[in-house]
Amino acid sequence: MKEYIQANQQRYLDELFDFLRIPSVSADSRHQPDMLRAAEYIKEKLLQAGLDKAEICPTAGHPVVYAEKIVNPEWPTILVYGHYDVQPADPIELWHTSPFEPVIRTTEIHPKGAIFARGACDDKGQIYMHVKAIEAMLKHDALTCNVKIMFEGEEEVGSANLATFVAENKEKLKADIILISDTSIIGHDVPSVETGLRGLAYMEVEVEGPNRDLHSGVYGGAVANPINVLSKMIASLHDEDGRITVKGFYDKVVELSAEERDALEAAPFNLEDYKKDLGIAEVSGEKGYTTRERASIRPTLDVNGIWGGYTGEGSKTVLPSKAFAKISMRLVPDQDWNEISDLFMQHFTAIAPPTVKVKVKPHHGGQPYVTPTDSPGYLAAFKAMQESFGKTPVPTRGGGSIPIVSLFEKELGLKSILLGFGLDSDALHSPNEHYGIVNFMKGIETIPLFYKYFRENFQ
Amino acid sequence: MKEYIQANQQRYLDELFDFLRIPSVSADSRHQPDMLRAAEYIKEKLLQAGLDKAEICPTAGHPVVYAEKIVNPEWPTILVYGHYDVQPADPIELWHTSPFEPVIRTTEIHPKGAIFARGACDDKGQIYMHVKAIEAMLKHDALTCNVKIMFEGEEEVGSANLATFVAENKEKLKADIILISDTSIIGHDVPSVETGLRGLAYMEVEVEGPNRDLHSGVYGGAVANPINVLSKMIASLHDEDGRITVKGFYDKVVELSAEERDALEAAPFNLEDYKKDLGIAEVSGEKGYTTRERASIRPTLDVNGIWGGYTGEGSKTVLPSKAFAKISMRLVPDQDWNEISDLFMQHFTAIAPPTVKVKVKPHHGGQPYVTPTDSPGYLAAFKAMQESFGKTPVPTRGGGSIPIVSLFEKELGLKSILLGFGLDSDALHSPNEHYGIVNFMKGIETIPLFYKYFRENFQ
Repeated sequence: MKEYIQANQQRYLDELFDFLRIPSVSADSRHQPDMLRAAEYIKEKLLQAGLDKAEICPTAGHPVVYAEKIVNPEWPTILVYGHYDVQPADPIELWHTSPFEPVIRTTEIHPKGAIFARGACDDKGQIYMHVKAIEAMLKHDALTCNVKIMFEGEEEVGSANLATFVAENKEKLKADIILISDTSIIGHDVPSVETGLRGLAYMEVEVEGPNRDLHSGVYGGAVANPINVLSKMIASLHDEDGRITVKGFYDKVVELSAEERDALEAAPFNLEDYKKDLGIAEVSGEKGYTTRERASIRPTLDVNGIWGGYTGEGSKTVLPSKAFAKISMRLVPDQDWNEISDLFMQHFTAIAPPTVKVKVKPHHGGQPYVTPTDSPGYLAAFKAMQESFGKTPVPTRGGGSIPIVSLFEKELGLKSILLGFGLDSDALHSPNEHYGIVNFMKGIETIPLFYKYFRENFQ
Repeated sequence: MKEYIQANQQRYLDELFDFLRIPSVSADSRHQPDMLRAAEYIKEKLLQAGLDKAEICPTAGHPVVYAEKIVNPEWPTILVYGHYDVQPADPIELWHTSPFEPVIRTTEIHPKGAIFARGACDDKGQIYMHVKAIEAMLKHDALTCNVKIMFEGEEEVGSANLATFVAENKEKLKADIILISDTSIIGHDVPSVETGLRGLAYMEVEVEGPNRDLHSGVYGGAVANPINVLSKMIASLHDEDGRITVKGFYDKVVELSAEERDALEAAPFNLEDYKKDLGIAEVSGEKGYTTRERASIRPTLDVNGIWGGYTGEGSKTVLPSKAFAKISMRLVPDQDWNEISDLFMQHFTAIAPPTVKVKVKPHHGGQPYVTPTDSPGYLAAFKAMQESFGKTPVPTRGGGSIPIVSLFEKELGLKSILLGFGLDSDALHSPNEHYGIVNFMKGIETIPLFYKYFRENFQ
């Protein structure tokens, strides 16, 4: 089967490229038709791979693509989750090639070539590994578990409608484990399996000063400027130690034991390479924690976007009426995203000076998540990685969020296995996102091993 | 002549409307052709009014429109300065009618109607008063001074090329006084003449963190976010008393005497009406100064625009590479805008943390200015206002800037008289800018009186 997979690499890539050419940006309503095209495309590929009952299931938002192959009711069933939507491509001017016209280029980290396109790694490239792995297993009569596919179109905008879909399709989605490839490994020669993810609370704030834009000469100095005020409010959200000042923010944060922290630190990491890759002189963050801890086991607050006043060419001496910011917080066990959203709203409103009016609107969020490392699913992932990489994989905690995993556990009573093959340096959510060809192929080879070991462990 | 002016009101308005329909936005290079159209239009109107030698003088930027009428070399010469360029119209969505399709509407403050359009007051409406006043004087053989016209097209972007033009045309621009209508009166029944203007230093800053946009989950908490950093830097530019923290910023600020401050406070002002008009619960500003002082005799620092990260629809969990802001400072005697620009650059660079790189670029600026109230020019303006309003005008200090006036004094050795007729509430630089028809007509009637009294005082 491995030979078959190697022999078909070019075809796999051609098919993936067609998939990547569809600009399925879920956040932008102008791409609605592309979302449907992407759903149609992946549905067709699932049928061609040999799955049955591939269907496009409408939701209040973008549709869910479902498919299944029940070989034997006695066998365990794997529910594969992923998403066919992608992040917006902007800032478009920073892309070296068009985000929706994939090209292969080599990089220092990817000497054998990487696919450059929005969604190459997050998550079209990674869900396509599953489609091709299943195709290969079926071709070789080696599908050792039943499989169900659930690819959604709203992961990048908070999976707003997937909860309803899952709640309404519990029977259809019945399975023994959920398998997700939407995370990363430490390096080409350092396989890893993520044991946890951070939660998310995403907010949008509006600060209004005067009821209209003003001439900064006539009114400047006498009327509060909403941009200056917003800046001051944002600045106050962190203290000098890099801790978040929102009241009650840390109340439910679980502190890891020294042993757990040591285990995470055991994985290879080079701070100098990290800084060099990002082009920064210094890292920064919460006092008392390492860079990896700050990016995985600690909660954060980042402004994802800010705008107000005149942002065009040249200059405009305006004292604007309003200023805006998108602010998101990454959460860790046992923070609850609804609770944190409320705390943020209360805090942000409370710190607003009487010179302005403030509006806070929650965008979306999700709960943090941890996988038990002794479960059959985790052990199967561990063995599969070990065999295909020929190295013992390292357990890691991911900094990103897949809001839906905690919901799966709640609604379906299923754990999720995070079997990702990307690299953190693959520029996810950034211009020039890419995915190594080696990583893509390694994924297709590893997934059948997961099926094999899950079946074994399951007995 | 007054009757003639009244009788021609409709024609004056029709001509002004055509002028206002030309979107002469100097800050936006896409409006280059409109700039030329506006220059052509006003040149034609100057010729029709009876001036000689109207010409469009090219500069490195937008052209200067020049015209003159030398009646008698023995008589004093008035150089009229103004600008035919306007501020950008955005945020366009906040305009109730199209910014470049003028309409007349009544407001609480303008019961007899006001012209709504970008540039209605600043400054197309006000320069057009001069064109029509000169036309009326010539029609009635009542032009008692020689007149020279200099209308530029770069006032809203810092008059970058006017300095060169003035330096190269000293002979041509030879005059006895400069007359400018680009400021405001206190109210319809409270005439005032501005005795000073604030200077300006306009900067643009860029804060760069990582060399690319990052996934806020993978890197958030461990890498400095340039928006958070910029917010903190901006917040630090004011202390708790509302004073600007830029080192050396106040060193050359001239403190007014108690008498001078009392004189300025004598002019009618109602804080409650002021807050009501702006829809704010509280004013704010430098401790120890009144609202009017904060907006006129004290220097300020305002963020005129800020942008960074994802500002589109929905959400994007990005930790951006860069954040930007446009920051301007209003200056008072004897602050020097070049000096302040340097101080700002040094300070802003100095307060940047080692986690980011900072770029500071000065946009433009101008020196603060004060007119002596005992000069023939000021006295002529005073008498003209007194006669046409039937009330004693109040001397005021303006908060805005006309960077070029101090340059006129330096290059041409001439004082400028600020004979403006707008109201601060006319929404200059804002959506729904407007100019009262009464104000427009009052200006056309008052200007000839200035010529009359200037000629008299001049003897």
